[in-house]
Amino acid sequence: MNAPDSRDQITARQMVPVILAIGIWFSPIPEGLTADAWHLFAIFVSAILAVIINAFPLLTSALLAGSAAVLTDTLDPAKAFAGFANPSVLLVVVAFLVAQAVVQCGLGRRISLHVVERFGKSTLGLGYSIFITDALIAPGFPSNTSRGGVLYPIILALAQGSGSVPDDEGRRRLGGFLMFCGMASLSVSSALWLTATSANPIGVSLVAEQGLRVNFGSWLLVASVPALVVIGLLPLMLYRLFPPGVTDTPDAPQAAREALRSMGSLSRDEWITAVVFGSMVCAWILGGAFNLSLTAVAIAGLGTLLATRVLALRDIHEQGGTLATFLWLAVLFALSGQLNEMGFMSYVGERLALLLGDLSWPVAYVVLLLLYVLLHYLFVSQSAQVLALLGVFLDVGVQAGVPVHLMGFALLFASSYFSTLTPQGGSQNIIFAASGYLTQRELYRLGLLTTVFCTLVFLGIGTPWILWVGG
Amino acid sequence: MNAPDSRDQITARQMVPVILAIGIWFSPIPEGLTADAWHLFAIFVSAILAVIINAFPLLTSALLAGSAAVLTDTLDPAKAFAGFANPSVLLVVVAFLVAQAVVQCGLGRRISLHVVERFGKSTLGLGYSIFITDALIAPGFPSNTSRGGVLYPIILALAQGSGSVPDDEGRRRLGGFLMFCGMASLSVSSALWLTATSANPIGVSLVAEQGLRVNFGSWLLVASVPALVVIGLLPLMLYRLFPPGVTDTPDAPQAAREALRSMGSLSRDEWITAVVFGSMVCAWILGGAFNLSLTAVAIAGLGTLLATRVLALRDIHEQGGTLATFLWLAVLFALSGQLNEMGFMSYVGERLALLLGDLSWPVAYVVLLLLYVLLHYLFVSQSAQVLALLGVFLDVGVQAGVPVHLMGFALLFASSYFSTLTPQGGSQNIIFAASGYLTQRELYRLGLLTTVFCTLVFLGIGTPWILWVGG
Repeated sequence: MNAPDSRDQITARQMVPVILAIGIWFSPIPEGLTADAWHLFAIFVSAILAVIINAFPLLTSALLAGSAAVLTDTLDPAKAFAGFANPSVLLVVVAFLVAQAVVQCGLGRRISLHVVERFGKSTLGLGYSIFITDALIAPGFPSNTSRGGVLYPIILALAQGSGSVPDDEGRRRLGGFLMFCGMASLSVSSALWLTATSANPIGVSLVAEQGLRVNFGSWLLVASVPALVVIGLLPLMLYRLFPPGVTDTPDAPQAAREALRSMGSLSRDEWITAVVFGSMVCAWILGGAFNLSLTAVAIAGLGTLLATRVLALRDIHEQGGTLATFLWLAVLFALSGQLNEMGFMSYVGERLALLLGDLSWPVAYVVLLLLYVLLHYLFVSQSAQVLALLGVFLDVGVQAGVPVHLMGFALLFASSYFSTLTPQGGSQNIIFAASGYLTQRELYRLGLLTTVFCTLVFLGIGTPWILWVGG
Repeated sequence: MNAPDSRDQITARQMVPVILAIGIWFSPIPEGLTADAWHLFAIFVSAILAVIINAFPLLTSALLAGSAAVLTDTLDPAKAFAGFANPSVLLVVVAFLVAQAVVQCGLGRRISLHVVERFGKSTLGLGYSIFITDALIAPGFPSNTSRGGVLYPIILALAQGSGSVPDDEGRRRLGGFLMFCGMASLSVSSALWLTATSANPIGVSLVAEQGLRVNFGSWLLVASVPALVVIGLLPLMLYRLFPPGVTDTPDAPQAAREALRSMGSLSRDEWITAVVFGSMVCAWILGGAFNLSLTAVAIAGLGTLLATRVLALRDIHEQGGTLATFLWLAVLFALSGQLNEMGFMSYVGERLALLLGDLSWPVAYVVLLLLYVLLHYLFVSQSAQVLALLGVFLDVGVQAGVPVHLMGFALLFASSYFSTLTPQGGSQNIIFAASGYLTQRELYRLGLLTTVFCTLVFLGIGTPWILWVGG
C-alpha cells in the first residue's frame, strides 16, 4: 500500500484515531449513558474513523479496537468474542468458501454463457444479459465479491471478443459499458436476494433487534418490484449515459454457443455443485418454515463439497482473505452489537429524533434514507456501514414515526444499491474498476448517477410497495 | 491424496463412519443417557473414526458432523457454534497468525543461530542446541507447527553444512539424528509451556471443567522438572540409539557466527517483534494476577504487528490453512464440550471406573496414562485426541481416586510428549518426517522409544514432583 520507507514512521494520520479515542474517552460522559457505553463508543468510532481516513486497514483497526475494549475492561471477553459464534458472521465465512466451488467447477460460467447465447446479439443485450445472469445466480452466492469473480472473466471475454481494448479510446467504451454493467448489476442483485451479499444477513440480524423479522422469502417479495424495475431500466440508462460506440454484437451468441460446446456436457463436479446449491437454496427458502439454521445448511453444503472433493483442502488453504474477513467482521459485529446493547444506539437515536422531531414521518424517512446513502462516500465497505449506522438510522426513523418495516427494508436495500457510489464502495467493485476500461472520473460520475437512479426507484416505487406487502 | 479417478466413487472406507453413525443412532439408548446425548455420541464418534481411518480429512469430517448435529435437532445452533467464540480456540487461531511474524522478520532464526554459536561444536552439541533453542522460543509460539517451521530450515542448513544428504547412506545419519531431535524437541518443549502448542490451552480449558485451574505460571512450575530431565537426557539417548556417524562439527559455531554477522544488527521488524513478543509473554505470565484475557493479549499483539506493518495484510491472506484449523477445531470443540455437558463423558467415566474399581488409585493412574498414550497410535492430531479423550480419562481417574491435579497434569503433559509416537502424530512432525533423512521404520522405532522414555520420566520423576508442588 504505502512505500516501504513510510513504514518506519507512525504517520500523523495514524495518530488521528488514537487522539480521537483518548479525547472522547476522557471527555465528560453525557448524562444518560454508562461509562462503559461511552468508552466503547470512543473505541468504536475511532476504529471506524481509522478505516475511513485510511490510517489502518479494516482488520488492523478491528483487532486493535477489540483487544482495547477487553484489556481496558470496557467489555467482557465473552461478549467481545461472541461475534465469532454469530450465525450471520459464520454464514458469510462459509458462503465465501462455498462460492469457490461454483467458480472452480465452471458452473457459474456455463450459466452465464447460456444467458449470453440468448440475449447477447447487441451491446445493450449484452448489458441486459449481465444483469439477468447476475440476478439469477445471485441467491446461490452470499458473497457478491465471489460473484464478481465469476462475472468478471466473462465480461472481459465479451469485451475483448467485441474488439474493445482499454488503450484504444474509440474501442474502449464498449468494454467500459460492460464493466460498469457488472458493477451496477452486483449492487442491484444484492438488493434482490437476502443471500446475495454478506452485508444482508448482518443487516437482517440488526433489524431483528428492532423487532423486524425478515426471512429469505419475505425479503425477495418486498425487494422484487423495485429491484426488477431497476434491472429493467438501468442497462438502458447506462447505455444512454455512456454510449458504448459499438451497438451490435451479432457474433456473441455464436461465441457463447461455441464456448458451451467446447465445455461439453455438465461435468461430475458441476452436477454435484448444482445439486448441492439447489439443495442449499431450497433449504434457505424453506428454512423459516422448518426452523432450519441457514448457517448449518451452508456448513452442510461446504462439508458435502469437500467430501465429494469438488472442493479440495488446498482450496480452503488459499482462503486466508476469508479468515481476515472473519476476524474483522466478528470483532466489529460484536462491538457494534454491544454498543447497541449498552443503550448507545437508542441514546443517539433519541437525540437525532429530537432534531427531526418537527418533521412529519414521510419527510424524516426521506431525509434519513438520503443521509444514509450519502454517508457511503465515507465508507470503504458495505458491511462496515451496516454495522456502524443501520441500527441507529432505523432507531431514529422508528422514533420519528416511520413504520419499522418501511424504514428497515429501505435501509436494508440501500445498503446494497449504494455500493457503486465510489469505486471502493464495495470490494466487488475493485476488480471491475481495475480493468482499465473506465477512468476514475467516469467511475465516480456513473457511480453517482446509478446510485441516484436506484434511490429514486426505491423511494418512488419501493416505498408504496413496501407499505403494501411488507407490513 | 487419492488418484483422480478414485474421486468418482464413494469408497467403502467412506461408508464406514456413515454406517457406524446410523448404527449407533438407531440402537437402543443406554439407560442413564438422554436421546440427544446418545445421538451426539453417534455423530461425534463417527467423525473421529472417519479421521482415524482416513475416510475424510479433519475439516470435512468436522463440518459434516457439526451440521448433522444441528440439522437433526440434536444440538441447538447456538451451542454448536459456540466453539468459534471460545477463547482457547481463538487463541490458537491468533497465535498461528502471530507466529508468522517471528518467522518472517528473522528473529527466530537469529535466536537459534546464537544458540548454535554457543553449543554447536559437536553433533551431540548440535542436538542439544536444537532442544535448548526450541525450549527457549517455545512460550512465544503457541503453535508448535509454526515453531517447527522456524527450526526446520536451520536444522536442514546444519545437516547440509555438515555434508549430510539423504541419498548417501553413510552421510545420511547425521541429518537424520538432527531431524529427529527437532521432532522430539517439539514434543517436550510443548509439554514445558502452556503456550507452546495449540492443544495445551484446549486441555487447560477441559481440566478446568473438573475444577483444576491451571495458568501459565503453575503449568511451567509443574512441568519444569520432568521436562528439563527429558531435555537433559533425550539428545544423548537419541545419539546412542541412532549414532549419527559424524560426531564433531567444529565449524558450526563459526558458520553461525558468520550467518549472524551477515544478518547484521536487529532490524526494525525484529525489534518490534521482540518487544511485542516480550510484552505478550509478560502479559501471559501476569494474566492470572491481573485477570487479563490471554486471547485479548494475543489479539492486541497481532493488531500491533499489523499496525506497525511487521505483518502485512497479504501475510494474513496466505493463512487459509489457519482458517481450516479454526473451522474444524471450533466445531469439534463444541461437539466434544456438548457431549460432556450432556453427561456422556461422566457416564462413560462411571462405567470405566467400575472396571477399574478394584485397582488402587496408583495402579489406575498408571493404567490410564499408558492407555491414553498408546491410544495416540490412532490419532492424527494431538488436539483431536485431547478433545475426544482427555476429559473422559480425567474423569475416570478422579472417580478411581487419583488426585485431580496429578491425573490432570499427567494427561496434559502426555498430550504433548506422545506426539512423536507416529510420524503423523502431530502436524509439526510432517515437515521433519518428509525431509528424507529418516526411513519410515526409523521414524516409528525412534518415535516409540522416545515416547516410552518420556512416559517413564514423567511417571517416575514427574509423579512425585506433581504431588509435591501441584496440589
